[in-house]
Amino acid sequence: VVHTDIIIGTTLLFFSRQNKREKKKERNSTAMKVLEKASSINRSYFLSERKQKERDDLEGGMKENIKASSAKEYYITVLRLGHRLVRDERMSTHLGLVARAFGADELILTGKEDDIAHSINKVVERWGGHFKVSFSQSWKKAIEEWKSSHNGLVIHLTMYGEELDNALALINEHFDKCSGSNRSLLVIVGAEKVPPEVYVISDFNVSVGHQPHSEIAALAVFLDRLYRGKELYSTFDEAKIRILPMTRKDFGGKNLRIKKRVEVVVSDESGI
Amino acid sequence: VVHTDIIIGTTLLFFSRQNKREKKKERNSTAMKVLEKASSINRSYFLSERKQKERDDLEGGMKENIKASSAKEYYITVLRLGHRLVRDERMSTHLGLVARAFGADELILTGKEDDIAHSINKVVERWGGHFKVSFSQSWKKAIEEWKSSHNGLVIHLTMYGEELDNALALINEHFDKCSGSNRSLLVIVGAEKVPPEVYVISDFNVSVGHQPHSEIAALAVFLDRLYRGKELYSTFDEAKIRILPMTRKDFGGKNLRIKKRVEVVVSDESGI
Repeated sequence: VVHTDIIIGTTLLFFSRQNKREKKKERNSTAMKVLEKASSINRSYFLSERKQKERDDLEGGMKENIKASSAKEYYITVLRLGHRLVRDERMSTHLGLVARAFGADELILTGKEDDIAHSINKVVERWGGHFKVSFSQSWKKAIEEWKSSHNGLVIHLTMYGEELDNALALINEHFDKCSGSNRSLLVIVGAEKVPPEVYVISDFNVSVGHQPHSEIAALAVFLDRLYRGKELYSTFDEAKIRILPMTRKDFGGKNLRIKKRVEVVVSDESGI
Repeated sequence: VVHTDIIIGTTLLFFSRQNKREKKKERNSTAMKVLEKASSINRSYFLSERKQKERDDLEGGMKENIKASSAKEYYITVLRLGHRLVRDERMSTHLGLVARAFGADELILTGKEDDIAHSINKVVERWGGHFKVSFSQSWKKAIEEWKSSHNGLVIHLTMYGEELDNALALINEHFDKCSGSNRSLLVIVGAEKVPPEVYVISDFNVSVGHQPHSEIAALAVFLDRLYRGKELYSTFDEAKIRILPMTRKDFGGKNLRIKKRVEVVVSDESGI
Protein backbone atom coordinates (compact mmCIF):
# COMPACT_ATOMS: atom_id res chain seq x y z
CA VAL A 1 0.00 0.00 0.00
CA VAL A 2 2.77 2.37 0.93
CA HIS A 3 4.70 1.87 -2.28
CA THR A 4 1.67 2.12 -4.52
CA ASP A 5 0.40 5.29 -2.90
CA ILE A 6 3.71 7.01 -3.22
CA ILE A 7 4.22 5.90 -6.80
CA ILE A 8 0.76 7.20 -7.67
CA GLY A 9 1.52 10.44 -5.89
CA THR A 10 4.83 11.01 -7.62
CA THR A 11 3.48 9.90 -11.01
CA LEU A 12 0.63 12.37 -10.77
CA LEU A 13 3.04 15.10 -9.84
CA PHE A 14 5.36 14.12 -12.64
CA PHE A 15 2.60 14.33 -15.25
CA SER A 16 1.29 17.55 -13.80
CA ARG A 17 4.72 19.08 -14.41
CA GLN A 18 4.87 17.71 -17.97
CA ASN A 19 1.53 19.22 -18.98
CA LYS A 20 2.76 22.53 -17.60
CA ARG A 21 -0.16 24.83 -16.84
CA GLU A 22 -3.33 22.89 -17.67
CA LYS A 23 -5.45 21.66 -14.82
CA LYS A 24 -2.42 21.99 -12.60
CA LYS A 25 -4.35 22.92 -9.52
CA GLU A 26 -6.74 19.96 -9.40
CA ARG A 27 -4.03 17.43 -10.11
CA ASN A 28 -1.69 18.83 -7.54
CA SER A 29 -4.33 18.85 -4.92
CA THR A 30 -5.09 15.16 -5.60
CA ALA A 31 -1.40 14.33 -5.65
CA MET A 32 -0.85 16.15 -2.40
CA LYS A 33 -3.61 14.26 -0.66
CA VAL A 34 -2.26 10.90 -1.85
CA LEU A 35 1.26 11.85 -0.86
CA GLU A 36 0.24 13.10 2.54
CA LYS A 37 -1.57 9.85 3.20
CA ALA A 38 1.34 7.78 1.90
CA SER A 39 3.81 9.75 3.92
CA SER A 40 1.95 9.18 7.18
CA ILE A 41 1.62 5.44 6.48
CA ASN A 42 5.24 5.30 5.45
CA ARG A 43 6.37 6.73 8.74
CA SER A 44 4.39 4.47 11.00
CA TYR A 45 5.62 1.60 8.86
CA PHE A 46 9.25 2.33 9.64
CA LEU A 47 9.11 3.61 13.17
CA SER A 48 8.05 1.75 16.30
CA GLU A 49 5.08 3.24 18.12
CA ARG A 50 7.28 4.72 20.82
CA LYS A 51 9.66 6.28 18.30
CA GLN A 52 6.77 7.61 16.29
CA LYS A 53 5.30 9.22 19.38
CA GLU A 54 8.63 10.77 20.34
CA ARG A 55 8.96 12.13 16.86
CA ASP A 56 5.44 13.50 16.74
CA ASP A 57 6.02 15.17 20.10
CA LEU A 58 9.23 16.69 18.80
CA GLU A 59 7.50 18.01 15.71
CA GLY A 60 4.49 19.18 17.71
CA GLY A 61 6.74 21.01 20.15
CA MET A 62 8.60 22.68 17.32
CA LYS A 63 5.40 23.73 15.63
CA GLU A 64 4.20 25.31 18.88
CA ASN A 65 7.46 27.16 19.26
CA ILE A 66 7.15 28.45 15.74
CA LYS A 67 3.59 29.58 16.35
CA ALA A 68 4.68 31.37 19.51
CA SER A 69 7.35 33.24 17.61
CA SER A 70 5.45 33.86 14.41
CA ALA A 71 5.70 37.62 14.94
CA LYS A 72 8.69 38.89 12.99
CA GLU A 73 11.49 39.25 15.51
CA TYR A 74 13.89 41.50 13.62
CA TYR A 75 14.11 43.67 10.56
CA ILE A 76 17.40 42.74 8.96
CA THR A 77 19.26 44.53 6.19
CA VAL A 78 22.36 42.90 4.69
CA LEU A 79 24.96 45.22 3.18
CA ARG A 80 27.35 43.49 0.80
CA LEU A 81 30.61 45.41 0.40
CA GLY A 82 32.96 45.34 -2.51
CA HIS A 83 30.93 43.42 -5.02
CA ARG A 84 32.61 44.58 -8.21
CA LEU A 85 33.89 41.77 -10.34
CA VAL A 86 31.98 39.44 -12.60
CA ARG A 87 33.40 36.51 -10.66
CA ASP A 88 31.61 37.86 -7.57
CA GLU A 89 28.20 37.55 -9.22
CA ARG A 90 27.40 34.02 -8.16
CA MET A 91 28.75 34.60 -4.69
CA SER A 92 26.58 37.69 -4.29
CA THR A 93 23.53 35.88 -5.65
CA HIS A 94 24.04 33.06 -3.16
CA LEU A 95 24.57 35.62 -0.42
CA GLY A 96 21.26 37.28 -1.29
CA LEU A 97 19.41 33.96 -1.35
CA VAL A 98 20.92 33.02 2.01
CA ALA A 99 19.87 36.39 3.43
CA ARG A 100 16.30 35.79 2.25
CA ALA A 101 16.11 32.14 3.35
CA PHE A 102 17.58 32.87 6.80
CA GLY A 103 15.23 35.67 7.72
CA ALA A 104 16.71 38.92 6.38
CA ASP A 105 14.46 41.47 4.68
CA GLU A 106 16.70 43.25 2.25
CA LEU A 107 20.08 43.22 0.54
CA ILE A 108 22.03 46.32 -0.44
CA LEU A 109 24.85 45.81 -2.92
CA THR A 110 27.59 48.35 -3.49
CA GLY A 111 29.07 48.64 -6.93
CA LYS A 112 27.47 48.61 -10.33
CA GLU A 113 24.10 47.06 -11.06
CA ASP A 114 24.02 43.73 -12.82
CA ASP A 115 22.00 40.53 -13.06
CA ILE A 116 22.02 39.73 -9.36
CA ALA A 117 18.86 41.66 -8.55
CA HIS A 118 17.14 39.94 -11.46
CA SER A 119 18.18 36.43 -10.30
CA ILE A 120 17.08 37.09 -6.73
CA ASN A 121 13.81 38.73 -7.75
CA LYS A 122 12.97 35.69 -9.89
CA VAL A 123 13.36 33.52 -6.79
CA VAL A 124 11.18 35.88 -4.75
CA GLU A 125 8.50 35.79 -7.42
CA ARG A 126 8.32 31.98 -7.38
CA TRP A 127 9.06 31.26 -3.75
CA GLY A 128 7.31 34.22 -2.15
CA GLY A 129 8.06 36.75 0.54
CA HIS A 130 8.96 40.43 0.34
CA PHE A 131 12.74 40.36 0.08
CA LYS A 132 14.16 43.50 -1.57
CA VAL A 133 17.44 44.05 -3.43
CA SER A 134 18.89 47.50 -4.03
CA PHE A 135 22.15 49.11 -5.08
CA SER A 136 24.12 51.90 -3.49
CA GLN A 137 27.02 53.77 -5.06
CA SER A 138 28.71 54.21 -1.69
CA TRP A 139 28.83 51.92 1.31
CA LYS A 140 29.28 54.93 3.58
CA LYS A 141 26.10 56.54 2.31
CA ALA A 142 24.24 53.26 2.65
CA ILE A 143 25.26 52.96 6.29
CA GLU A 144 24.41 56.60 7.01
CA GLU A 145 20.99 56.25 5.42
CA TRP A 146 20.32 53.09 7.37
CA LYS A 147 21.37 54.76 10.63
CA SER A 148 19.14 57.76 10.01
CA SER A 149 16.06 55.59 9.46
CA HIS A 150 16.71 52.73 11.92
CA ASN A 151 17.53 52.68 15.58
CA GLY A 152 19.22 49.31 15.65
CA LEU A 153 22.64 47.63 15.71
CA VAL A 154 25.32 47.57 13.04
CA ILE A 155 27.01 44.18 12.93
CA HIS A 156 30.12 43.64 10.84
CA LEU A 157 30.95 40.01 10.13
CA THR A 158 34.71 39.58 10.08
CA MET A 159 37.11 36.85 11.05
CA TYR A 160 39.01 39.46 13.06
CA GLY A 161 36.07 40.24 15.31
CA GLU A 162 35.02 38.92 18.68
CA GLU A 163 33.65 35.45 19.24
CA LEU A 164 30.12 34.81 17.99
CA ASP A 165 28.81 33.47 21.30
CA ASN A 166 30.07 36.50 23.25
CA ALA A 167 28.72 38.97 20.73
CA LEU A 168 25.32 37.25 20.54
CA ALA A 169 24.96 37.35 24.31
CA LEU A 170 25.42 41.14 24.20
CA ILE A 171 23.25 41.58 21.11
CA ASN A 172 20.42 39.65 22.76
CA GLU A 173 20.83 41.68 25.92
CA HIS A 174 20.44 44.84 23.88
CA PHE A 175 17.34 43.67 22.02
CA ASP A 176 15.71 42.35 25.18
CA LYS A 177 15.33 45.99 26.20
CA CYS A 178 13.97 47.15 22.83
CA SER A 179 10.43 47.49 21.58
CA GLY A 180 9.41 45.68 18.39
CA SER A 181 10.02 48.57 16.03
CA ASN A 182 13.61 49.04 17.20
CA ARG A 183 14.66 45.47 16.61
CA SER A 184 16.58 46.12 13.44
CA LEU A 185 20.05 45.07 12.37
CA LEU A 186 22.36 46.10 9.58
CA VAL A 187 24.63 43.14 8.86
CA ILE A 188 27.71 44.14 6.89
CA VAL A 189 29.40 41.41 4.87
CA GLY A 190 32.74 42.18 3.27
CA ALA A 191 34.53 40.88 0.25
CA GLU A 192 38.30 40.58 0.07
CA LYS A 193 39.23 44.08 1.25
CA VAL A 194 37.19 45.92 3.84
CA PRO A 195 37.84 49.65 4.51
CA PRO A 196 39.18 50.14 8.08
CA GLU A 197 36.37 52.61 8.89
CA VAL A 198 33.88 49.74 8.75
CA TYR A 199 35.48 48.26 11.87
CA VAL A 200 34.93 51.51 13.74
CA ILE A 201 31.50 52.42 12.40
CA SER A 202 30.07 49.05 13.50
CA ASP A 203 28.62 48.36 16.93
CA PHE A 204 29.98 44.83 16.80
CA ASN A 205 32.70 43.15 14.80
CA VAL A 206 31.67 39.53 14.98
CA SER A 207 33.66 36.52 13.86
CA VAL A 208 32.06 33.20 13.01
CA GLY A 209 35.15 31.23 13.94
CA HIS A 210 38.64 32.59 13.39
CA GLN A 211 39.50 30.55 10.35
CA PRO A 212 39.23 31.72 6.75
CA HIS A 213 36.07 30.38 5.09
CA SER A 214 33.17 32.10 3.34
CA GLU A 215 31.02 35.19 3.83
CA ILE A 216 28.04 33.08 2.73
CA ALA A 217 28.65 30.62 5.55
CA ALA A 218 29.28 33.41 8.06
CA LEU A 219 25.99 35.11 7.23
CA ALA A 220 24.01 31.85 7.36
CA VAL A 221 25.42 30.77 10.72
CA PHE A 222 25.08 34.25 12.23
CA LEU A 223 21.39 34.46 11.26
CA ASP A 224 20.72 30.85 12.28
CA ARG A 225 22.16 31.55 15.73
CA LEU A 226 20.39 34.92 16.04
CA TYR A 227 17.01 33.33 15.24
CA ARG A 228 17.88 30.18 17.23
CA GLY A 229 17.01 28.01 14.24
CA LYS A 230 13.45 29.28 13.96
CA GLU A 231 14.09 30.97 10.62
CA LEU A 232 14.11 27.58 8.89
CA TYR A 233 10.37 27.28 9.58
CA SER A 234 9.44 30.66 8.11
CA THR A 235 6.64 30.78 5.59
CA PHE A 236 6.74 33.15 2.64
CA ASP A 237 3.67 35.07 1.49
CA GLU A 238 2.40 34.70 -2.04
CA ALA A 239 4.62 31.74 -2.87
CA LYS A 240 3.86 29.93 -6.12
CA ILE A 241 5.92 26.94 -5.12
CA ARG A 242 6.74 25.19 -1.90
CA ILE A 243 8.36 21.94 -0.87
CA LEU A 244 6.70 19.09 0.92
CA PRO A 245 9.52 17.71 3.08
CA MET A 246 10.21 14.06 2.29
CA THR A 247 11.07 11.57 5.00
CA ARG A 248 12.56 8.61 3.20
CA LYS A 249 14.52 5.51 3.99
CA ASP A 250 14.60 6.34 7.68
CA PHE A 251 17.65 4.91 9.34
CA GLY A 252 17.06 1.26 10.20
CA GLY A 253 14.16 0.93 7.78
CA LYS A 254 13.97 -0.75 4.40
CA ASN A 255 14.79 0.90 1.11
CA LEU A 256 11.82 2.69 -0.34
CA ARG A 257 12.33 3.60 -3.95
CA ILE A 258 10.93 6.90 -5.04
CA LYS A 259 12.18 7.96 -8.42
CA LYS A 260 11.21 11.60 -8.26
CA ARG A 261 11.72 14.13 -5.59
CA VAL A 262 8.62 16.18 -5.01
CA GLU A 263 7.83 19.74 -5.81
CA VAL A 264 4.35 20.99 -5.10
CA VAL A 265 2.93 24.01 -6.80
CA VAL A 266 0.18 25.67 -4.85
CA SER A 267 -1.96 28.65 -5.72
CA ASP A 268 -2.39 29.83 -2.16
CA GLU A 269 0.37 29.56 0.36
CA SER A 270 -0.85 28.69 3.82
CA GLY A 271 2.48 27.80 5.40
CA ILE A 272 4.81 24.82 5.03
CA VAL B 1 46.06 54.96 28.74
CA VAL B 2 43.80 52.67 26.77
CA HIS B 3 44.26 54.54 23.52
CA THR B 4 48.00 54.85 23.83
CA ASP B 5 48.52 51.19 24.64
CA ILE B 6 46.45 50.07 21.72
CA ILE B 7 48.08 52.47 19.31
CA ILE B 8 51.49 51.25 20.46
CA GLY B 9 50.35 47.68 20.05
CA THR B 10 48.99 48.13 16.57
CA THR B 11 51.92 50.27 15.48
CA LEU B 12 54.35 47.62 16.60
CA LEU B 13 52.39 44.99 14.74
CA PHE B 14 52.19 47.19 11.68
CA PHE B 15 55.95 47.66 11.57
CA SER B 16 56.59 44.03 12.25
CA ARG B 17 54.60 43.23 9.12
CA GLN B 18 56.45 45.86 7.05
CA ASN B 19 59.88 44.55 7.92
CA LYS B 20 58.65 41.11 6.92
CA ARG B 21 60.77 38.40 8.51
CA GLU B 22 63.35 40.19 10.64
CA LYS B 23 62.99 40.00 14.37
CA LYS B 24 59.33 39.20 13.85
CA LYS B 25 59.06 36.96 16.86
CA GLU B 26 60.34 39.41 19.47
CA ARG B 27 58.31 42.28 18.16
CA ASN B 28 55.14 40.27 17.95
CA SER B 29 55.58 38.97 21.42
CA THR B 30 55.99 42.55 22.73
CA ALA B 31 53.05 43.74 20.65
CA MET B 32 50.94 40.88 21.87
CA LYS B 33 51.68 41.67 25.50
CA VAL B 34 50.82 45.36 25.02
CA LEU B 35 47.66 44.45 23.17
CA GLU B 36 46.58 41.90 25.71
CA LYS B 37 47.01 44.47 28.46
CA ALA B 38 45.21 47.14 26.47
CA SER B 39 42.43 44.77 25.58
CA SER B 40 41.81 43.84 29.20
CA ILE B 41 41.82 47.48 30.26
CA ASN B 42 39.55 48.31 27.37
CA ARG B 43 37.01 45.76 28.44
CA SER B 44 36.85 46.71 32.10
CA TYR B 45 36.68 50.31 30.94
CA PHE B 46 33.49 49.67 29.00
CA LEU B 47 31.77 47.04 31.07
CA SER B 48 30.47 47.34 34.59
CA GLU B 49 31.98 44.95 37.11
CA ARG B 50 28.88 42.78 37.11
CA LYS B 51 28.77 42.63 33.31
CA GLN B 52 32.46 41.88 33.16
CA LYS B 53 32.03 39.03 35.61
CA GLU B 54 29.08 37.62 33.70
CA ARG B 55 31.12 37.77 30.57
CA ASP B 56 34.17 36.14 32.09
CA ASP B 57 31.94 33.39 33.49
CA LEU B 58 30.43 32.86 30.05
CA GLU B 59 33.84 32.61 28.46
CA GLY B 60 35.15 30.42 31.26
CA GLY B 61 32.17 28.10 30.89
CA MET B 62 32.66 27.87 27.17
CA LYS B 63 36.33 27.11 27.55
CA GLU B 64 35.51 24.28 29.94
CA ASN B 65 32.99 22.87 27.51
CA ILE B 66 35.56 22.95 24.77
CA LYS B 67 38.10 21.22 26.93
CA ALA B 68 35.57 18.51 27.76
CA SER B 69 34.90 17.91 24.10
CA SER B 70 38.42 18.28 22.81
CA ALA B 71 38.41 14.67 21.57
CA LYS B 72 37.43 14.68 17.90
CA GLU B 73 33.77 13.72 17.78
CA TYR B 74 33.36 12.76 14.12
CA TYR B 75 35.38 11.97 11.05
CA ILE B 76 33.69 13.89 8.28
CA THR B 77 34.19 13.60 4.53
CA VAL B 78 32.47 16.09 2.24
CA LEU B 79 31.70 14.93 -1.29
CA ARG B 80 31.06 17.78 -3.71
CA LEU B 81 29.04 16.62 -6.72
CA GLY B 82 28.96 18.14 -10.15
CA HIS B 83 31.84 20.57 -9.92
CA ARG B 84 32.62 20.99 -13.60
CA LEU B 85 32.55 24.56 -14.75
CA VAL B 86 35.11 27.28 -14.25
CA ARG B 87 32.41 29.39 -12.64
CA ASP B 88 32.09 26.72 -9.94
CA GLU B 89 35.71 27.17 -8.87
CA ARG B 90 35.19 29.87 -6.28
CA MET B 91 32.10 28.19 -4.94
CA SER B 92 33.97 24.91 -4.53
CA THR B 93 36.93 26.65 -2.90
CA HIS B 94 34.60 28.33 -0.41
CA LEU B 95 32.86 25.02 0.16
CA GLY B 96 36.21 23.38 0.95
CA LEU B 97 37.22 26.17 3.33
CA VAL B 98 33.85 25.94 5.08
CA ALA B 99 34.27 22.17 5.40
CA ARG B 100 37.69 22.68 7.02
CA ALA B 101 36.65 25.56 9.30
CA PHE B 102 33.50 23.76 10.50
CA GLY B 103 35.16 20.51 11.48
CA ALA B 104 35.27 18.29 8.40
CA ASP B 105 38.41 16.30 7.62
CA GLU B 106 38.41 15.92 3.87
CA LEU B 107 36.84 17.09 0.65
CA ILE B 108 36.34 14.91 -2.42
CA LEU B 109 35.61 16.73 -5.66
CA THR B 110 34.17 15.02 -8.71
CA GLY B 111 35.17 16.34 -12.09
CA LYS B 112 38.50 17.44 -13.44
CA GLU B 113 41.37 18.65 -11.31
CA ASP B 114 42.02 22.36 -11.17
CA ASP B 115 43.30 25.07 -8.85
CA ILE B 116 40.91 24.36 -6.01
CA ALA B 117 43.14 21.85 -4.26
CA HIS B 118 46.01 24.31 -4.55
CA SER B 119 43.99 27.19 -3.03
CA ILE B 120 42.76 25.07 -0.15
CA ASN B 121 46.17 23.52 0.51
CA LYS B 122 47.69 26.99 0.72
CA VAL B 123 45.19 27.84 3.47
CA VAL B 124 45.96 24.59 5.30
CA GLU B 125 49.69 25.34 5.14
CA ARG B 126 49.26 28.78 6.74
CA TRP B 127 46.34 28.13 9.07
CA GLY B 128 47.16 24.57 10.10
CA GLY B 129 45.27 21.32 10.51
CA HIS B 130 45.21 18.17 8.42
CA PHE B 131 42.42 18.85 5.94
CA LYS B 132 42.76 16.83 2.71
CA VAL B 133 41.44 17.50 -0.79
CA SER B 134 41.16 14.79 -3.42
CA PHE B 135 39.49 14.18 -6.78
CA SER B 136 37.38 11.30 -7.96
CA GLN B 137 36.34 10.59 -11.54
CA SER B 138 33.01 9.15 -10.43
CA TRP B 139 30.76 10.10 -7.56
CA LYS B 140 29.43 6.54 -7.43
CA LYS B 141 32.90 5.11 -6.98
CA ALA B 142 33.69 7.72 -4.34
CA ILE B 143 30.62 6.72 -2.32
CA GLU B 144 31.34 3.00 -2.72
CA GLU B 145 34.92 3.45 -1.61
CA TRP B 146 33.80 5.47 1.38
CA LYS B 147 31.22 2.86 2.32
CA SER B 148 33.75 0.04 2.11
CA SER B 149 36.19 1.80 4.46
CA HIS B 150 33.78 3.54 6.87
CA ASN B 151 30.88 2.29 8.92
CA GLY B 152 29.05 5.59 9.22
CA LEU B 153 26.14 7.56 7.82
CA VAL B 154 25.67 9.02 4.36
CA ILE B 155 23.97 12.41 4.56
CA HIS B 156 22.76 14.15 1.43
CA LEU B 157 22.04 17.85 1.84
CA THR B 158 19.08 18.78 -0.33
CA MET B 159 16.23 21.25 -0.06
CA TYR B 160 13.87 18.36 -0.85
CA GLY B 161 14.89 16.37 2.20
CA GLU B 162 13.46 16.13 5.67
CA GLU B 163 13.73 18.90 8.24
CA LEU B 164 17.15 19.45 9.78
CA ASP B 165 15.94 19.21 13.39
CA ASN B 166 14.18 15.89 12.80
CA ALA B 167 17.13 14.42 10.93
CA LEU B 168 19.66 15.57 13.53
CA ALA B 169 17.63 13.97 16.32
CA LEU B 170 17.85 10.63 14.50
CA ILE B 171 21.50 11.10 13.52
CA ASN B 172 22.43 11.83 17.14
CA GLU B 173 20.43 8.82 18.29
CA HIS B 174 22.44 6.67 15.90
CA PHE B 175 25.83 8.01 16.95
CA ASP B 176 24.98 7.75 20.65
CA LYS B 177 25.17 4.00 20.18
CA CYS B 178 28.44 4.06 18.24
CA SER B 179 32.00 3.71 19.39
CA GLY B 180 34.51 6.43 18.52
CA SER B 181 35.89 4.80 15.40
CA ASN B 182 32.44 4.45 13.84
CA ARG B 183 31.49 8.07 14.17
CA SER B 184 32.03 8.97 10.56
CA LEU B 185 29.85 10.84 8.09
CA LEU B 186 29.90 11.29 4.37
CA VAL B 187 28.17 14.58 3.64
CA ILE B 188 27.11 14.86 0.00
CA VAL B 189 26.68 18.36 -1.38
CA GLY B 190 25.17 18.75 -4.82
CA ALA B 191 25.44 21.38 -7.48
CA GLU B 192 22.58 22.25 -9.83
CA LYS B 193 21.61 18.75 -10.91
CA VAL B 194 21.86 15.78 -8.60
CA PRO B 195 21.45 12.21 -9.99
CA PRO B 196 18.28 10.58 -8.53
CA GLU B 197 20.30 7.62 -7.22
CA VAL B 198 21.93 9.92 -4.68
CA TYR B 199 18.57 10.31 -2.92
CA VAL B 200 18.28 6.54 -2.54
CA ILE B 201 21.90 5.73 -1.75
CA SER B 202 21.90 8.18 1.21
CA ASP B 203 20.82 7.29 4.73
CA PHE B 204 19.36 10.76 5.15
CA ASN B 205 18.23 13.44 2.77
CA VAL B 206 18.44 16.52 4.93
CA SER B 207 17.15 19.97 4.11
CA VAL B 208 18.47 23.10 5.78
CA GLY B 209 15.23 24.98 5.27
CA HIS B 210 13.03 24.44 2.24
CA GLN B 211 13.95 27.60 0.40
CA PRO B 212 16.52 27.87 -2.37
CA HIS B 213 19.81 29.29 -1.07
CA SER B 214 23.38 27.98 -1.15
CA GLU B 215 25.18 24.67 -0.68
CA ILE B 216 27.88 26.59 1.18
CA ALA B 217 25.33 27.84 3.72
CA ALA B 218 23.69 24.42 3.98
CA LEU B 219 27.01 22.73 4.77
CA ALA B 220 28.00 25.38 7.33
CA VAL B 221 24.70 25.27 9.20
CA PHE B 222 24.53 21.46 9.11
CA LEU B 223 28.02 21.13 10.61
CA ASP B 224 27.41 23.93 13.12
CA ARG B 225 24.28 22.16 14.36
CA LEU B 226 25.93 18.72 14.35
CA TYR B 227 28.82 20.00 16.49
CA ARG B 228 26.48 22.24 18.53
CA GLY B 229 28.69 25.25 17.83
CA LYS B 230 31.80 23.70 19.35
CA GLU B 231 33.60 23.54 16.00
CA LEU B 232 34.17 27.31 16.10
CA TYR B 233 36.61 26.79 18.97
CA SER B 234 38.71 24.16 17.24
CA THR B 235 42.43 24.64 17.17
CA PHE B 236 44.50 23.63 14.17
CA ASP B 237 47.85 21.89 14.52
CA GLU B 238 50.95 23.42 13.00
CA ALA B 239 49.32 26.76 12.21
CA LYS B 240 51.64 29.56 11.13
CA ILE B 241 49.01 32.19 11.73
CA ARG B 242 46.18 32.69 14.12
CA ILE B 243 43.80 35.50 15.05
CA LEU B 244 43.61 37.24 18.38
CA PRO B 245 39.88 38.01 18.70
CA MET B 246 39.29 41.74 19.11
CA THR B 247 36.59 43.10 21.39
CA ARG B 248 36.09 46.70 20.40
CA LYS B 249 33.62 49.52 20.86
CA ASP B 250 31.35 47.42 23.05
CA PHE B 251 27.79 48.56 22.83
CA GLY B 252 27.20 51.59 25.05
CA GLY B 253 30.89 52.49 25.22
CA LYS B 254 32.77 55.31 23.55
CA ASN B 255 34.40 55.10 20.16
CA LEU B 256 37.82 53.59 20.32
CA ARG B 257 39.84 54.15 17.19
CA ILE B 258 42.03 51.32 16.10
CA LYS B 259 43.39 51.77 12.64
CA LYS B 260 44.57 48.25 12.00
CA ARG B 261 42.91 44.98 12.64
CA VAL B 262 45.29 42.53 14.20
CA GLU B 263 46.91 39.45 12.83
CA VAL B 264 49.34 37.59 15.00
CA VAL B 265 51.91 35.29 13.53
CA VAL B 266 53.10 32.64 15.94
CA SER B 267 55.74 30.02 15.49
CA ASP B 268 54.09 27.50 17.77
CA GLU B 269 50.34 27.10 17.90
CA SER B 270 49.06 26.45 21.38
CA GLY B 271 45.38 27.03 20.76
CA ILE B 272 43.32 30.16 20.19
